Amino acid sequence: MIYPASLEKLINYYKKLPGIGEKNAERMALATLNFKEEDVDGFSESLKDVKEKIKKCSICGHLAEGEICSICADEARDHNMICVIEDYKSVFSFEKVGNYHGVYHVLNGLISPADNIGPDNINLASLVKRVEKLKKPELILALKSTVEGETTTLYIKKIFEKKDVMISRLSYGIPMGAEIDYLDIITLDKALEDRKKISE
Amino acid sequence: MIYPASLEKLINYYKKLPGIGEKNAERMALATLNFKEEDVDGFSESLKDVKEKIKKCSICGHLAEGEICSICADEARDHNMICVIEDYKSVFSFEKVGNYHGVYHVLNGLISPADNIGPDNINLASLVKRVEKLKKPELILALKSTVEGETTTLYIKKIFEKKDVMISRLSYGIPMGAEIDYLDIITLDKALEDRKKISE
Repeated sequence: MIYPASLEKLINYYKKLPGIGEKNAERMALATLNFKEEDVDGFSESLKDVKEKIKKCSICGHLAEGEICSICADEARDHNMICVIEDYKSVFSFEKVGNYHGVYHVLNGLISPADNIGPDNINLASLVKRVEKLKKPELILALKSTVEGETTTLYIKKIFEKKDVMISRLSYGIPMGAEIDYLDIITLDKALEDRKKISE
Repeated sequence: MIYPASLEKLINYYKKLPGIGEKNAERMALATLNFKEEDVDGFSESLKDVKEKIKKCSICGHLAEGEICSICADEARDHNMICVIEDYKSVFSFEKVGNYHGVYHVLNGLISPADNIGPDNINLASLVKRVEKLKKPELILALKSTVEGETTTLYIKKIFEKKDVMISRLSYGIPMGAEIDYLDIITLDKALEDRKKISE
């Protein structure tokens, strides 16, 4: 055995983290040795805390400490505007941008007939119930542009189109700062199709 | 606040690890949420364990669980052959190679007059004492080829040269598999100087 037993064990735990191989795990474990006592205690406590405290928001499905998440609990936000996303990681992305003041709905998956995932297998029924309670609901569909994403977008559009719900999806187009010459043709085609008039 | 409090805290601890930025720390914290309960407990325990149990070997200065390290405690190893290294990470490198059966001595630094680090500031006195107790001591100096490394190598050579101690250093030369065309000139010069006769 190359490492002392307790160090070997810690290396193996670090290796369970995404993107961390042998070399990095070793480096991280050795760095842990140089942590202050209080940081090691805090880190150790923090791991258990996260696992214990974080549940899913009973309204939108986002991560929450307690029954509902901080976004659903925030009265300053527009609760009539719901951004529909595939998983909770998108919430963090939107919140980092900081320009969205509505709420979210986490589908926790996408419809995928090929994988036997139907509308009942994702968090859709609760969205329908949520929307029914709203006076002037607006849905922003922010799902990726794969077959599964498009299928789910179309399905949701169909559910709500007769119910006086305003529905939009994120725009497709050229990423800011991208070189047009290096863009894939599908994106370029979409950008052409969705072109925006700028003349008076 | 974008993240739930406990998650934010864990992200900040992950960020203390070497080479881990915001994005990776977030990814790691979210992955932790999907760990099995027992893994989180084990991970949490392991962090404290490493900090508590791992000390320095009283003989060689390498990491040890207990008074002396597993290498110094191993009677099958050649205790007359001591490989002198800058820090304990080198032990792991040599042990991975697996061809060295002597023991080690961790200097915990290198002589560096520019940084006010003299021979008394590194773990040298204990090396002298160790060597004095041996019958046919052999020292292998495995220090890097910087000014500090060379200074320390020369200093150690001077201490022991009148004491009937066999001293060697690692060879310099072309790394295995390297393209000669891309090699830095200093390495190439060393490789030329240290060339090895292969004719009969």
